[in-house]
Amino acid sequence: MANVVNLHGDRDGDRDAGREGTRKPSFDRLTRLVEADMQRVNQHILDNMKSPVTLIPQLAGHLIAAGGKRLRPVMVCAAAQLCGYTGSRHVGLAACVEFIHTATLLHDDVVDESDLRRGQESANAVWGNQASVLVGDFLLSRAFQLMTADGQLKVLKILSDASAVIAEGEVLQLMTANAPETSEEDYLEVIRSKTARLFAASTQLGAVVADRPAKEEEALYSYGMNLGIAFQLVDDVLDYSADQAALGKTVGDDFREGKVTLPVVLAWRRGTEEEREFWRRTIERSEQTPDDLQQAMDLMAKHDTLNDTLDRARHYGKIARDALGIFPQAEVKEAMLESIDFVIERAY
Amino acid sequence: MANVVNLHGDRDGDRDAGREGTRKPSFDRLTRLVEADMQRVNQHILDNMKSPVTLIPQLAGHLIAAGGKRLRPVMVCAAAQLCGYTGSRHVGLAACVEFIHTATLLHDDVVDESDLRRGQESANAVWGNQASVLVGDFLLSRAFQLMTADGQLKVLKILSDASAVIAEGEVLQLMTANAPETSEEDYLEVIRSKTARLFAASTQLGAVVADRPAKEEEALYSYGMNLGIAFQLVDDVLDYSADQAALGKTVGDDFREGKVTLPVVLAWRRGTEEEREFWRRTIERSEQTPDDLQQAMDLMAKHDTLNDTLDRARHYGKIARDALGIFPQAEVKEAMLESIDFVIERAY
Repeated sequence: MANVVNLHGDRDGDRDAGREGTRKPSFDRLTRLVEADMQRVNQHILDNMKSPVTLIPQLAGHLIAAGGKRLRPVMVCAAAQLCGYTGSRHVGLAACVEFIHTATLLHDDVVDESDLRRGQESANAVWGNQASVLVGDFLLSRAFQLMTADGQLKVLKILSDASAVIAEGEVLQLMTANAPETSEEDYLEVIRSKTARLFAASTQLGAVVADRPAKEEEALYSYGMNLGIAFQLVDDVLDYSADQAALGKTVGDDFREGKVTLPVVLAWRRGTEEEREFWRRTIERSEQTPDDLQQAMDLMAKHDTLNDTLDRARHYGKIARDALGIFPQAEVKEAMLESIDFVIERAY
Repeated sequence: MANVVNLHGDRDGDRDAGREGTRKPSFDRLTRLVEADMQRVNQHILDNMKSPVTLIPQLAGHLIAAGGKRLRPVMVCAAAQLCGYTGSRHVGLAACVEFIHTATLLHDDVVDESDLRRGQESANAVWGNQASVLVGDFLLSRAFQLMTADGQLKVLKILSDASAVIAEGEVLQLMTANAPETSEEDYLEVIRSKTARLFAASTQLGAVVADRPAKEEEALYSYGMNLGIAFQLVDDVLDYSADQAALGKTVGDDFREGKVTLPVVLAWRRGTEEEREFWRRTIERSEQTPDDLQQAMDLMAKHDTLNDTLDRARHYGKIARDALGIFPQAEVKEAMLESIDFVIERAY
């Protein structure tokens, strides 16, 4: 029974709208709708990765070519489309958001000493920590050049604020890294800052470039923020349950790095004194034996903390869904709603 | 005879203007002239280091409190004063420049694995590399918030371009780190990017906030750029010759890290095949014995490369001096000229 995660939301029933029959929710529909935009975004990314310093396009290309789903740029384009925007400012801003995200990944891998990223060797494993730190700095600076090129002060404020909050969240995460007694609230503050805020900025920008009223801007911010929280919570669950190949990272990484995520927070809160001593030893003092990961997963199964973390993710997914309620029916809206389901049920 | 560096420019005679009799040139005169401004800058720095995430002000405060001379913010204030500026935008921009610089220092120390910074333990030695990377990211993001708060797109462009060029220069330096056959031109490109460009941006900003004509802006850019090059070249010399306590860093750091600086570039170019094998072993392959630093210093003495690096620094200092020629006589101008001499003759 250990780690049989309830992936289909049985306790909630399957009441999610935007799903067609038993077809698995996917991100593809949204990707298709913004395909033309994303081709321009990808070209913009390639153009702006260029540098006479050859290591920069090499290293950045390694990570950016590895691709992933470009969730954040897609979100910029989708939100712009939802707002009826017909200009092209969203292209540069989508590239900008991806650069901020990529810089964060590069620095994260240094901080985490991770060897895998999206299923392939991480940049720091190939080129070393020094190059990852410096190329990350370059990408972050390039992101600021891209937003300066946009030139609207409101855009600059949204993105520079997001960037500072992300860095603050990363430091906060470092401070709570080995503290299993971290509260759920404090943990949520970390993921709001380090993950969800950039999703929120991405979708908000769609309304800003389209010059839409504040309530639409707020709605898109809320959609991005809550989608981002759900995304990170599911990521936390996957680290203890996913198929390694599908996940593109090593299962158990968070545990081995002493990272405190919601499945651990809940297991600690629900645990006996003896179990808490297990978490103190493995997470707080980083004294781990090869069997400890299985023991951690068994404790999570005992207290059902993976399912309950997914339940929390569904809660935020629902807020994201309702946030879009003020927008009229549109195919891109349907696809954005389906993306919420994808985020929660992905990798299965 | 080894390492007796000709510090008083005998070969050039002592023709420098702006020096009074035999008094040692100092940075104090300039500092005094901008003292009131710098109090506001320091307060602005403290206010903007604040964060509920306590590690951020702790770590940033460690580095910013250690102080150094705040060369770059002083340069912003001095240039603004030279341009007759009476507003207060230079305060935020001076803080911004110091944040960019501090972020660079934090990441440099991670990259260099340095244990000392300005004569005290470096942040990474106290708090670890992870915190240094992330707090550096925070300071860089905060710098972008500060320039966004200024709001002039020209300012944003100057500073975001400088920030990208700095990062590019750091990567270039990493790529040439163990190559003693690096050319003087390539080495100059590194220090123009990683050091001098931020000085140039600092002094340029003085003209920009004062809304002065392009030729004054260009003159101040040139002053900052050439002063910055001279500054870095002297730094390179100090690493092989200075008194450790006065220098505030460990003599021989550059050598031990396999860093190629101009004294090495010149020694390689002027060396015998046997000497080049010494540089290949110690710098390229990083195979060093405790006696090698002395051997390196002996080879530099043999080829007079420390004196000649200082000579190159004087060359750039003179360009900086002439750049200010278009400005009328003023006390702040005299103090800026004296600062060139200080940069070249400091720590003696």
